Amino acid sequence: MRIYGDLNSGNCLKVKWVCDALSLPYEWIAVDTMQGETRSPEFLALNPAGQVPVVVLSDGRPLAQSNAIIRFLARDSALVPAEHYLAAKMDEWLFWEQYSHEPYIAVCRYQMVYLGKPASALDPDRVKRGHAALALMERQLAGSMFLTGARPTLADVALLAYTRLAPEGGFSLHDYPAVRRWIGDAESTLRLAPVGGTG
Amino acid sequence: MRIYGDLNSGNCLKVKWVCDALSLPYEWIAVDTMQGETRSPEFLALNPAGQVPVVVLSDGRPLAQSNAIIRFLARDSALVPAEHYLAAKMDEWLFWEQYSHEPYIAVCRYQMVYLGKPASALDPDRVKRGHAALALMERQLAGSMFLTGARPTLADVALLAYTRLAPEGGFSLHDYPAVRRWIGDAESTLRLAPVGGTG
Repeated sequence: MRIYGDLNSGNCLKVKWVCDALSLPYEWIAVDTMQGETRSPEFLALNPAGQVPVVVLSDGRPLAQSNAIIRFLARDSALVPAEHYLAAKMDEWLFWEQYSHEPYIAVCRYQMVYLGKPASALDPDRVKRGHAALALMERQLAGSMFLTGARPTLADVALLAYTRLAPEGGFSLHDYPAVRRWIGDAESTLRLAPVGGTG
Repeated sequence: MRIYGDLNSGNCLKVKWVCDALSLPYEWIAVDTMQGETRSPEFLALNPAGQVPVVVLSDGRPLAQSNAIIRFLARDSALVPAEHYLAAKMDEWLFWEQYSHEPYIAVCRYQMVYLGKPASALDPDRVKRGHAALALMERQLAGSMFLTGARPTLADVALLAYTRLAPEGGFSLHDYPAVRRWIGDAESTLRLAPVGGTG
């Protein structure tokens, strides 16, 4: 299997983490999104949406969308609950992540880290919605070890990707102690090196 | 099962269509999102994100996020491919819908239909991205009967919801003949009444 990705992208890291956690072998192909490498005809043939990550399975078939990829790769593992309702709650978090978390927290980080915007120049509505996402996670994690219960699932993998990097997007985690506790628990469970900015 | 929803919302219609197509019994509870009914303590206990649709299963357990709900309800049906890769391609479309289609096409429609904005007052970047989503669907549907192949799946259910309403958001489907062809095919396969604006 080949993974086309960018190690600075949380969406790409989700795929790497799942492969590493499940000991799935892969070749990592670094794609420089800032140099237009996701707009080449060869890349668009793999993913017409022009986004990383993309995986190409050993039989040559491509698959895009980070959460669809990790759901496929981890389908028979402990990262996906066997009980249908719990798996559906995991899916609830995966869709929520892409609709109500990533467009705010990851995009603010992108604008600061990649485009060099100062925090003061971020769209206030985007910042407000990012904090609303963190507040929702805080309420959930104050009463639950992981997002869907006592065991980590793909919901934790997906939300960890950009939540641990939220400070790089101007989001202090000071007011979210349960989120900070969960980041450490999820990092150690998934055996990830902690990042500097999440304390 | 109870479905909390708004019949003017494509996200809610997805759930209704799947239940109707699979003959799953339900009680429909109309929620008026414009009157703050998704912000009540009772509603937030079902879905802390404060969004419809929400289903409450017969055992009382709630589930939110339209695509997570339909994935759960249809899990053993012909609307979800049995082959793992095809199911993953379906998921790719479901996540793409929430990230790259709904925030542009459905939000423009919301601003025009619910808030009374004229098309000329829409954010040009949002309109551009909506057309990019339609163009991507056009390329796929020019070579494929349904989004993932010869048979309809939840990908078609999810994308149909707002694509058939796109003209209400200022998006003419004139330049997307394969999309128009697919709307008719998907509506008749799912036994839905056509809407006026999609021709």
